[in-house]
Amino acid sequence: MSFAAPVTDQRLTLDAVVRIGELNGGPDAEMVDAVLEGAAALAEGEFAPLDRIGDTVGARWDNGRVTMPAGFKSAWQSFVDGGWMTLAAPEEHGGQGLPFALAAALMDNLNAANIGFALCPMLSMGAIEALDRHGSAELKRDYLPKIVTGEWPATMNLTEPQAGSDVGALKTRAEPNGDGSWRITGTKIFITYGEHDLTDQILHLVLARTPGAPDGTRGISLFLVPKLLPDGSPNDLRCVSIEHKLGIHASPTCVMSYGDQGGATGWLVGPENGGMAAMFTMMNNARLNVGLQGVGIAERATQRAVAYALERRQGLRNRLPVPISEHPDVRRMLLRMRALTMGARALVYYAFGQVDRAIRGDPLAAMRAEVLTPLAKAWGTDVGCEVASLGVQVHGGAGYIEETGAAQHLRDARIAPIYEGTNGIQAADLVGRKLGLDGGLAFDGLIADIEAEAQDPRLVALADAVEVAAASLREAAPDDRLAGSYPFLTMTSVMVAGWLVERMARSEGANERVVAAANYFLASIVPEALGLGAAAEEGAALLYAVPAEALA
Amino acid sequence: MSFAAPVTDQRLTLDAVVRIGELNGGPDAEMVDAVLEGAAALAEGEFAPLDRIGDTVGARWDNGRVTMPAGFKSAWQSFVDGGWMTLAAPEEHGGQGLPFALAAALMDNLNAANIGFALCPMLSMGAIEALDRHGSAELKRDYLPKIVTGEWPATMNLTEPQAGSDVGALKTRAEPNGDGSWRITGTKIFITYGEHDLTDQILHLVLARTPGAPDGTRGISLFLVPKLLPDGSPNDLRCVSIEHKLGIHASPTCVMSYGDQGGATGWLVGPENGGMAAMFTMMNNARLNVGLQGVGIAERATQRAVAYALERRQGLRNRLPVPISEHPDVRRMLLRMRALTMGARALVYYAFGQVDRAIRGDPLAAMRAEVLTPLAKAWGTDVGCEVASLGVQVHGGAGYIEETGAAQHLRDARIAPIYEGTNGIQAADLVGRKLGLDGGLAFDGLIADIEAEAQDPRLVALADAVEVAAASLREAAPDDRLAGSYPFLTMTSVMVAGWLVERMARSEGANERVVAAANYFLASIVPEALGLGAAAEEGAALLYAVPAEALA
Repeated sequence: MSFAAPVTDQRLTLDAVVRIGELNGGPDAEMVDAVLEGAAALAEGEFAPLDRIGDTVGARWDNGRVTMPAGFKSAWQSFVDGGWMTLAAPEEHGGQGLPFALAAALMDNLNAANIGFALCPMLSMGAIEALDRHGSAELKRDYLPKIVTGEWPATMNLTEPQAGSDVGALKTRAEPNGDGSWRITGTKIFITYGEHDLTDQILHLVLARTPGAPDGTRGISLFLVPKLLPDGSPNDLRCVSIEHKLGIHASPTCVMSYGDQGGATGWLVGPENGGMAAMFTMMNNARLNVGLQGVGIAERATQRAVAYALERRQGLRNRLPVPISEHPDVRRMLLRMRALTMGARALVYYAFGQVDRAIRGDPLAAMRAEVLTPLAKAWGTDVGCEVASLGVQVHGGAGYIEETGAAQHLRDARIAPIYEGTNGIQAADLVGRKLGLDGGLAFDGLIADIEAEAQDPRLVALADAVEVAAASLREAAPDDRLAGSYPFLTMTSVMVAGWLVERMARSEGANERVVAAANYFLASIVPEALGLGAAAEEGAALLYAVPAEALA
Repeated sequence: MSFAAPVTDQRLTLDAVVRIGELNGGPDAEMVDAVLEGAAALAEGEFAPLDRIGDTVGARWDNGRVTMPAGFKSAWQSFVDGGWMTLAAPEEHGGQGLPFALAAALMDNLNAANIGFALCPMLSMGAIEALDRHGSAELKRDYLPKIVTGEWPATMNLTEPQAGSDVGALKTRAEPNGDGSWRITGTKIFITYGEHDLTDQILHLVLARTPGAPDGTRGISLFLVPKLLPDGSPNDLRCVSIEHKLGIHASPTCVMSYGDQGGATGWLVGPENGGMAAMFTMMNNARLNVGLQGVGIAERATQRAVAYALERRQGLRNRLPVPISEHPDVRRMLLRMRALTMGARALVYYAFGQVDRAIRGDPLAAMRAEVLTPLAKAWGTDVGCEVASLGVQVHGGAGYIEETGAAQHLRDARIAPIYEGTNGIQAADLVGRKLGLDGGLAFDGLIADIEAEAQDPRLVALADAVEVAAASLREAAPDDRLAGSYPFLTMTSVMVAGWLVERMARSEGANERVVAAANYFLASIVPEALGLGAAAEEGAALLYAVPAEALA
């Protein structure tokens, strides 16, 4: 099934939710349209046709080399030639300096078209931001321009076998060479696009410990470790293997070994022991982008399900044979898919819009972006999984057959709640850091904005419930707070998304589709979220009533 | 990871929920224990070790023949030799006549151990019941004893390319040979274990139309079509291909072609045009058994996740390194998995227990079984998917790697909400037929029993909400009723499961694990279900506000 980029919905989201026209120094309406049309053509014409081969053939490893499926290399070249990597990159390094919210529309489309491929530019986006903000003038000069064009894709090397969610436990070492460079030794796992044949050069951003560094996250430094050294010779690093995964088969998930021959050469990004700050720069960008993966997959799954339901005829309605889209429960699934997709898109784009405002000097927007990041990542990806699963269901038996394509979306979607900080980590971030940000004003300001604007009584009731739960969690002991974190995150996300879809439905550019989806969101999804209040405030005692062993 | 059959939970469920000791002519406690122990040994020793090869190698088709992975044939022989197929089969045909609720414990284990394999006996169970109830004395004499032993596994042939949920649209034809046999011609799809090499003989139960039969479901007849004719020669039928599926790779899902050489020979089961009644006999049995698939997968996924969480160390708690099972949100996931598994098991076993009472002459139990069937099938399988997905999440990045095993459970679980009547069809059955059964008394009696026994105020509130929604749906127009059917089904299922886990927690045999799971169920899952009331009563207008095309 072909993919059609949701340009109308994206435009409405940018106008009514992001309010991109109000962005200081932002693009004019014509520029927004031009980017949306171009991104649509790229996703539909170059990325989507490779989605299936990406899944069935996938990235293949042989003796340290990774070969991408046929067509990927030339599609990457089109992406680079079209200047798509430069969209939101800083102008001083060859970027176009356009809003991240606009780049979000591009990534939304690429994720929908071919999520396994879209991971490659996604990783580079975070790297650009991290290097730009933390790198030395020399590093920026030598490396940023070619990351910005897409000629030198970048990776993030955080995880080690014993250091997953617990980044502070990492053991990779970095020792000074005395000439400003460092020798890196260690093994990293789950490195997305750690090796491939799209380009010759690959830039690895690697977290490591320097001699005498403090324990835990305070002793971590970030290094840039290129696959090819400045003189063109290969660095001492190697892709040892790639993983056999449930989905995103096109994306090579690499085990990377650094320094087998004595040490890979790298350069410090930011100050020694300042790696966590740089990592969070990458991570915050990546977290919003992972939220967009949920949006993209949800869009694709919805389009596929609607197309199938319009074509597949089963049963009667008013005594006439009808396509299954006419049966109430199938229609419910389709509308639910569309409403969730629209809500997740609104939430994630809105978060990017706050980042754009923050960059342009609005400190309140910076804090709001921080509050929104765990919501966008976790709920956006939960939506991706739910919608992809509904998509399988709409197809009935055909949905379980791989050739249909619906199952691939479910397999692909399932990674997003896991990586870039599991959704549980996002929930912990929400209640542990974001709820108290700026003395609580950052979170309270969001609720206040919603309470001031929300019109639907169900949405108002949800905002009230979130306010009550927030007050309760703030006073709770740490365990109790964490115990309620996930239901609280879901409630809060639905509240924000409900607010934004209500706003879209009331906006000038709203069409009947948006109104219908918003009405379903308010009538069904918002009341469901109200049912989570009890669990959010229940506390931890119940969870620890028996030792974990007793649950086996 | 090895599988350990949940004998203690099963015993408690049979005692406190099924009340198997009160079953007229039922087994004594020693017999129950003996069956549970034997079923555990079979599942753990013979089925579970083949789960991985079943997934990775799977059933393979070559020129009409299907080869099962190594080890399956001898494991099937152990199953047959152990007399496991005979458990709940009628005594007059070589069965042991034990309660279906006890056979449920066997299938629960086999599903957990190896769902792709367990499908083979599952299909035969429905066939035994259908033949016993509807077949002629001659057919029973000639075929039942060997289905009962497991020597001749049986299949269900309903679906055709144009006839999925709409069974009445099937086109396979049957014409009389004049000697009491019929010639069957047509193509059937999605035929589970339609061909394999576990046994020489396979018995196909095939729905077809006889000459001049009325349109739709009233013109359907059921035929027994053996792979090998009574003289040992091959019948005119062939497995044309098998499907490439998301999961249950061990289970060959066949396209079957009947009558390429002029007609496959078959014999009528039940009266001409009486096929739907016979089919529902098979289906009702199969629906409860599919509910059990959700239970089995949930059990397996829970065990795997708990084991991993106890072993995997990440982060600190009270400043000490701990396994991730000690972190509140991971503990929440594990407890949720256990609580959902326990609740689904209680609901499905309870439904089988009502079937057992019905067989022993209790007409109220027969109607209650009818009410419970869509709940057990749909909610049981939804639980299977949710728990399997949580299991992936508990594993973090490792969960996405196929070798870990958690992802297989998610892939395997995803078929169960689809086959044997999609969960949407179950919801339609609940509000369309079961809500009005016996003038509504069947459903109302269930609520009355729950309201009389329930102690937790949240459970009482849910029962009240279900009662209100039921009254509203009964008065609603058909479309409005169907529009609310799925949320209503979920609410009702959670109410029943909540009632039963509360009962288990209060029963004499309760242990701390059951009490903890029940408390979580009542504190979190029951309140969530309350959030579905609005959608259950919302009506259809919202769903049809825009044409389906507008949702693409």
